[in-house]
Amino acid sequence: VNTCAIIGVGLIGGSFGLALRKAGFRGAILGVDYPEPAARALERGAISEATSLESAAARADLLYLAQPIGAILETLPKLDTRALVTDTGSTKAAIVSCAATVIRRGQFLGGHPMAGKAVSGVDHADADLFAGRTYVLTPRDPSELETPAAREFRGWLEAIGARPVIAAPEEHDRIVAATSHLPQLLSTALAGFLAERLGGRSPIAGPGLDDMLRLAGSPYDLWRDILATNDAEIDAALRDFGAALERLRADLASVRMREAFEAAQRFKKGTA
Amino acid sequence: VNTCAIIGVGLIGGSFGLALRKAGFRGAILGVDYPEPAARALERGAISEATSLESAAARADLLYLAQPIGAILETLPKLDTRALVTDTGSTKAAIVSCAATVIRRGQFLGGHPMAGKAVSGVDHADADLFAGRTYVLTPRDPSELETPAAREFRGWLEAIGARPVIAAPEEHDRIVAATSHLPQLLSTALAGFLAERLGGRSPIAGPGLDDMLRLAGSPYDLWRDILATNDAEIDAALRDFGAALERLRADLASVRMREAFEAAQRFKKGTA
Repeated sequence: VNTCAIIGVGLIGGSFGLALRKAGFRGAILGVDYPEPAARALERGAISEATSLESAAARADLLYLAQPIGAILETLPKLDTRALVTDTGSTKAAIVSCAATVIRRGQFLGGHPMAGKAVSGVDHADADLFAGRTYVLTPRDPSELETPAAREFRGWLEAIGARPVIAAPEEHDRIVAATSHLPQLLSTALAGFLAERLGGRSPIAGPGLDDMLRLAGSPYDLWRDILATNDAEIDAALRDFGAALERLRADLASVRMREAFEAAQRFKKGTA
Repeated sequence: VNTCAIIGVGLIGGSFGLALRKAGFRGAILGVDYPEPAARALERGAISEATSLESAAARADLLYLAQPIGAILETLPKLDTRALVTDTGSTKAAIVSCAATVIRRGQFLGGHPMAGKAVSGVDHADADLFAGRTYVLTPRDPSELETPAAREFRGWLEAIGARPVIAAPEEHDRIVAATSHLPQLLSTALAGFLAERLGGRSPIAGPGLDDMLRLAGSPYDLWRDILATNDAEIDAALRDFGAALERLRADLASVRMREAFEAAQRFKKGTA
């Protein structure tokens, strides 16, 4: 990679720029964003130059789309580039499918860094954001990982400390529906349920409740695109979890309850 | 209080003894438990003497039952005492109802300290366990709080830093079904659902999942008595939460989803 361009220099994009520099990347890092975040990204050293999308697409050999899902889907058709294009969207099937029809000269390889913070924006960008965290790559075919550009990109991911994991786009979306989207909606639903049941926060609550409500603080604007682009898998996960909860309710007074607790403990410990 | 007796010197009972001492209590603190925990409680200074239940009931003017719910229900009928009897059970209606029929000479006042740790046993007892934490008192009638013995006990609760909250036993059980028992079962059900769906832990998961699975590590033995003594409220909470989750599922693609997220954020922030 001689020139990298980061489209969307918020928390993730800004962190990728800082992480590349920390890992020894010496080429130009172009940044594309609104004037204010672009200026902050320059100040912080996350990018070396602010430019337009058109210029970035023409000059970079790595295009890193770190926008919200909806913006990624709008950016992809505008890219006239020979670069390796990758993204950071939290759902993958819709993006990979879109890229397959609009990225013609370059190569697209979908990505999803499982990293983040409760805060957003380049001011919170962190060169170590990806260190030790899963970074999912979602080729439609495994051979896409073996092109020279993809191999080089994977090398940089390892250099910034990320842990690459390979999954097909649909498999990724099925898994995150269960491990990320369902937990978010459970926390949101729990907060809504308690608000309705109790009228407000009660001091009569254990410390475990705070853990269960942490995700309920997530803003809808982060979730709208996720829900819209993974609706079938999320619908299925909610439906099947609801059925599992009904079975647990039927078993409240049964010996099967011990089995349910012990299976949950095993899963939590990673020995399921 | 001249003589306090703690029945069950585990994490909660041991912490109450240590907290009383730290707050300046100078009377005897009798402890009733199996030989090994009783000896450890003596070593740690949580009690000043190990004795039998019969002797403790005869000598103490404050009897503090810090056993599991099932053991409290077994201990209550054995108590021949003039003391103020209080307990720490996580459900209250069954215990208060039992006490009303068997505590004749003394007074019973149910309690539930909303304090704990992920670990148990007197080795983890902590003089500051109750500091800043809600301590629910569950009189059947508010006048029970105004007897000289109850006033003195409440004074000690404040001296150890606890924050007393008053609720009728049934009201307490209805609230904890929603704020404690439902969250526990959601975490247990989520772990079971993921184990079935994914076969085991996947690296493709956000950090928020760990929060949602923390309670899934709870051992069934702590929960069996809670589920058995609050079954009707827990059943209703699971049923109504399941219905709320179905409504959220129906709204996945609707503008009502924004309202659901924003209501959840307000509740979490305590401004619902």
